[in-house]
Amino acid sequence: MITPSDQLYVRNNLPAPDASILSDRDAWEIAIEGVKQPRRLTLRELKALGLETVATVLQCSGNGRGFFPSKPSGTPWSVGAAGCVLWSGVPLKTVARSLGGVADGMLYVTGTGGEKLPEGVDPKSIIVERSVPLKALADAMLVWEMNGAPLTLAHGGPLRLIVPGYQGVNNIKYIKRLAFTATETDAKIMSHGYRVTPPGGKADPSQPSVLEMGVKSWINSPHPDSGTLAAGAVQIHGVAFGGVHAVKKVEVSVDGGRTWREARFFGPDLGAFAWRQFVIDATLPPGSHTLASRATDAAGNVQPELRVENVSGYSNTSWDDHAMKVNVA
Amino acid sequence: MITPSDQLYVRNNLPAPDASILSDRDAWEIAIEGVKQPRRLTLRELKALGLETVATVLQCSGNGRGFFPSKPSGTPWSVGAAGCVLWSGVPLKTVARSLGGVADGMLYVTGTGGEKLPEGVDPKSIIVERSVPLKALADAMLVWEMNGAPLTLAHGGPLRLIVPGYQGVNNIKYIKRLAFTATETDAKIMSHGYRVTPPGGKADPSQPSVLEMGVKSWINSPHPDSGTLAAGAVQIHGVAFGGVHAVKKVEVSVDGGRTWREARFFGPDLGAFAWRQFVIDATLPPGSHTLASRATDAAGNVQPELRVENVSGYSNTSWDDHAMKVNVA
Repeated sequence: MITPSDQLYVRNNLPAPDASILSDRDAWEIAIEGVKQPRRLTLRELKALGLETVATVLQCSGNGRGFFPSKPSGTPWSVGAAGCVLWSGVPLKTVARSLGGVADGMLYVTGTGGEKLPEGVDPKSIIVERSVPLKALADAMLVWEMNGAPLTLAHGGPLRLIVPGYQGVNNIKYIKRLAFTATETDAKIMSHGYRVTPPGGKADPSQPSVLEMGVKSWINSPHPDSGTLAAGAVQIHGVAFGGVHAVKKVEVSVDGGRTWREARFFGPDLGAFAWRQFVIDATLPPGSHTLASRATDAAGNVQPELRVENVSGYSNTSWDDHAMKVNVA
Repeated sequence: MITPSDQLYVRNNLPAPDASILSDRDAWEIAIEGVKQPRRLTLRELKALGLETVATVLQCSGNGRGFFPSKPSGTPWSVGAAGCVLWSGVPLKTVARSLGGVADGMLYVTGTGGEKLPEGVDPKSIIVERSVPLKALADAMLVWEMNGAPLTLAHGGPLRLIVPGYQGVNNIKYIKRLAFTATETDAKIMSHGYRVTPPGGKADPSQPSVLEMGVKSWINSPHPDSGTLAAGAVQIHGVAFGGVHAVKKVEVSVDGGRTWREARFFGPDLGAFAWRQFVIDATLPPGSHTLASRATDAAGNVQPELRVENVSGYSNTSWDDHAMKVNVA
């Protein structure tokens, strides 16, 4: 189920760069800093360094926001702000190694987007610049293809940072600077944006940032939108992923979480950072049924029953929120 | 590298069905014959029977036709008439089992497409109906999704037969009848179409039909179209697949096949019927170089050096034909 959604990528209300940046992709430059031999590299040079493909779930941190009764501002997503796609490019660790390795004392990978900044505004207040912990270097990539085609502007072309297992905002589009840094960036999108702020509070840098994704699953079919179902056999199916860990197990309930049965994964395993499809046979008698799914990752983390309340409606992995009623006649 | 190509699917010069057949997908009917309890099934009923996803290379039997010096009629494809995509649907063996199993004495799986047939023409002369050996039942699927989205008309929606590892024409679009049969269909597209006819000959049913694909690979980059390359490090990459067997190994030559080095597979393994990406580091000095790739499948079949000459330019797996000259300055 490879379902890229352009809507994922509109962020921070910044205008996208002009499409002219795609006119000579290979000439795109990125500054690599915080390595022993910092320098600018063209996309042409990156392409000579290495080539890998990784499948990742790209999910907006606001996916599931629509289930918060507090009605946070922002798009009230249920499950549509996620996709699972293939990215091709060069591992960031290969790039760092080619420049002498990460400089001493660096603790973060900080990426800066190539959005055109409006004049007369403090750049720090608007620039798309995010820091992730240095451990993300193990899997991070600088990519120029999605699903085998050159990255479109909407998907961050000509060059994008992909941090497998991390929430969408950390996957910097049109990346123009990649720095290994001793501290998190003080850009507002990092210091006060995308923070998990307790209800009634104000965002501040001490609160958790939206970084690693949590284990999560949801049912895609049957769906309440399909109307009343005929009684009898049905295939209940959906997707599940573990964020930075592979998903290991999915259970399905047809009685709102009172009893569970283990579902079967199907289709190719695209790797630890991809979602997997799951399915279970069921026979639904007439009546109203509440279908739910609950995933467990390889580290033993179980998808929680309840959301963590927060001002902006981030990181909703609640299985109860994602459960749905279907009517069977 | 998931690169579906609509151009793959124009065949036999028959007009596609009217798009209205997609207006109520779940009501599409297919007749299942040659089973112990033959009957018509709706797509809605198929969806309740089971769900699997398989990745396959879908390749026109004329892919590589452009390398035949005899200039056969038909599109002179080099490598563009192939893609690797994910199909979701129900295994055909599940369908057969639900209808009591395959009737005794049946040796073929025969699919009939839903193309609208012109009046005043013998249907057998124009209908898209193909037979594959019964052993294909092990992997064949009736599918309603491609890459996670409902099948478009161009890709054979609402329902298509997928025969993993078999050449494109056998993957019947808008399938309206699936019959287990004792003999091959006598439709012209089977009896006299898609036959591997020796040079100067005429097609007849005794010649090999285009069924299983052979082991094959090609290099996608660098490419002569990219112009003169700069001397130095380069990543040589491409795709390889084994048809009905998984691909096991790819070797790359930068000297036209005199010497070979084993390439590295990269990216997710989508299963035996998918292609795999391969890559090898090389350093190319100034001059002209002939790049070639040669794949080996899990059964030990090696991609051949030479094509098998035939009237219609089918089934070209020659590594020498797919080799290419690049200029380095």
